[in-house]
Amino acid sequence: MQHPKPQHLMLPGPTPLPPSVLQAMASPMLNHRGEVWQELYKEVAAGVHWLCQTEHETVMLAGSGTTGMEAALCNLFSPGEKVLAICQGSFSERFAQMAEVFGLNVTRLSYAWGEAARPEDLSRLLDESGPFKALLLVHNETSTGVLNPLESLAAIARQHGLLTIVDAISSLTTTPLPVDAWGLDVVITASQKGYLAPPGLSMLSLSPAAWAACEQGTLPRYTLDLLLARDYARRAMTPWTPPMPVFQALKAGFELMRHEGLLQIQARHYQLMRAVRAGLQALGMKLLVADERIASRAVTPVYPPAGVDAEDIRKVMHNNYHITLGAGQRKLSGQIFRIGHLGYQDVPTVLGVLGCLEMTLEQLGYPVQPGTATAAAQEALRLS
Amino acid sequence: MQHPKPQHLMLPGPTPLPPSVLQAMASPMLNHRGEVWQELYKEVAAGVHWLCQTEHETVMLAGSGTTGMEAALCNLFSPGEKVLAICQGSFSERFAQMAEVFGLNVTRLSYAWGEAARPEDLSRLLDESGPFKALLLVHNETSTGVLNPLESLAAIARQHGLLTIVDAISSLTTTPLPVDAWGLDVVITASQKGYLAPPGLSMLSLSPAAWAACEQGTLPRYTLDLLLARDYARRAMTPWTPPMPVFQALKAGFELMRHEGLLQIQARHYQLMRAVRAGLQALGMKLLVADERIASRAVTPVYPPAGVDAEDIRKVMHNNYHITLGAGQRKLSGQIFRIGHLGYQDVPTVLGVLGCLEMTLEQLGYPVQPGTATAAAQEALRLS
Repeated sequence: MQHPKPQHLMLPGPTPLPPSVLQAMASPMLNHRGEVWQELYKEVAAGVHWLCQTEHETVMLAGSGTTGMEAALCNLFSPGEKVLAICQGSFSERFAQMAEVFGLNVTRLSYAWGEAARPEDLSRLLDESGPFKALLLVHNETSTGVLNPLESLAAIARQHGLLTIVDAISSLTTTPLPVDAWGLDVVITASQKGYLAPPGLSMLSLSPAAWAACEQGTLPRYTLDLLLARDYARRAMTPWTPPMPVFQALKAGFELMRHEGLLQIQARHYQLMRAVRAGLQALGMKLLVADERIASRAVTPVYPPAGVDAEDIRKVMHNNYHITLGAGQRKLSGQIFRIGHLGYQDVPTVLGVLGCLEMTLEQLGYPVQPGTATAAAQEALRLS
Repeated sequence: MQHPKPQHLMLPGPTPLPPSVLQAMASPMLNHRGEVWQELYKEVAAGVHWLCQTEHETVMLAGSGTTGMEAALCNLFSPGEKVLAICQGSFSERFAQMAEVFGLNVTRLSYAWGEAARPEDLSRLLDESGPFKALLLVHNETSTGVLNPLESLAAIARQHGLLTIVDAISSLTTTPLPVDAWGLDVVITASQKGYLAPPGLSMLSLSPAAWAACEQGTLPRYTLDLLLARDYARRAMTPWTPPMPVFQALKAGFELMRHEGLLQIQARHYQLMRAVRAGLQALGMKLLVADERIASRAVTPVYPPAGVDAEDIRKVMHNNYHITLGAGQRKLSGQIFRIGHLGYQDVPTVLGVLGCLEMTLEQLGYPVQPGTATAAAQEALRLS
């Protein structure tokens, strides 16, 4: 378990954790029906509201982000109801597929992997087809590193009377997500992405319209019953015994996040994204997402240089430098690798990773002028 | 969060944790698709098999024990299928109610709260009614402190062709549960009971017949898909990002449990149960479960002496001695209190709790000869 050398987790989740967060997880167990627990719950819930800039009621469910996606579907809907799903990568496809598993009537607005959704396409489709009860979309498609123009897409959905249900699992903290200002009905996040916490919890915020939909939905649910979770949340508890170390970590994580500040956290992620992209491009590598305006601030997927294998890069980076990079998923498997740069990440780490990537490419027979990537990254940092 | 004085969590879960387990939760995050994680997963899974004495394939799901119960229902069954549920307390009623939420046709074999199921009743009911696809039951009914004669009940169910689905959430570790020897088809446990771990994971073992039933069940499921979980478990992973600190705690917990030994752990729980029951009875208090042969080794529910309020006892114990006791649930709310004595508990703790209970009763106006309960507990320890 413990390594003699530092390990560098450059994944789009789980992310490295600060020492105070790790330490918080070693706290004693509590009575989950007692006052000390309720105080802890309130602090964590206040943090979620702060991050999401929302006054909507929120709940927290044991599980991964996918648990939150499932809860949204099985609470708001009844079998056969029509939803529109934007599909453009592994996680957005999963959302659409999950809706089909629960018997919803799913229409897909599909894009090539690496493209963002275009508001004009959504507008046209909603004018021509429908009606739909809801729009399902992923804010930051982690498999391709695409950041969707969420504000515009949600505005169009609202104009057409749809509820907007957003997987914001890897976008929250890295990019602005003012839930109330953008009129987002359901926003789903998870603890192991930008929250400075381990995996184990999914958080959801629901608008009054979304809560009303929960009253109507007839799909069976029990542990994921959101109305029951809301009843307990109002008393600063969960219906079921909660994953305590994750809550304890979140409390410590929010102390650090509030100290850094919401805008500062977002600016840091923007800078790291720019630095990583500049470094990779300076090495002659092709980014999956060419246009920076739709590029993820959480993860950067990239094709290896011609003649170099993506999996070889991941292996050498892991074996020689203890740097863990993300792999390509599904149709991108073996074709790309992904550098995660969200959460507890900073400039030294990112420059170090780019420097090791230079040495890795050299070792794999691709000639690199040492310092190429790190110099370009520094230049990007100066300009951003 | 941190208290200047020791806190004594005498609940039937969450339970206090040993220092090495707390420390393990402060371990760094890992790549949940990497080899280090797989090694950790294998150690934890081996521990689950050891505790359950089973060669059945197991899976681990993020959530509470109730998550595991829901997974059993929504994987093995199709709407309308007939099940028989033994009902005798809060958790067994929940199991039956959950089956109804998922559209199963539920017949109840009901007992007064505090009674164990009688094999002859089950036998008669199965001879007269049915057929049923499965028997749903709780091994240790935490709300009433009843331990059911599981081996006999499961044998009768098997003779009649039923699958046996057992909530063993609070029985595992405290009492023998040889899954294969007793022919149990689905056994559901959770990390925060006897496992020396925090809440956050449910573990399930399924017999080949239960796995075959999963192939047939048509209820919708996604994150709780047990066949998918099995596919990943065979590669020492989970389909969804797992609650890492809970796994890290479990690994440390199993090191301690294996050092103590399975029979020794069960013997310790038996002794603590005997000591607590003897102490309470010496104080003239009425146990909810009079017959020791069906008494839980995890928790002892008891009525307060005449003229003393159960909630007052809990309050004084909490405020004066930092001892947290369980409350009565549902129809027993306010009528009883419950002393949990499972997991990381020992003789000094139990004697201290009984001594503080003597002082608490005295303070609440019920005359007690100091030492009455602790002396009786010591006598029970000498005899057991």
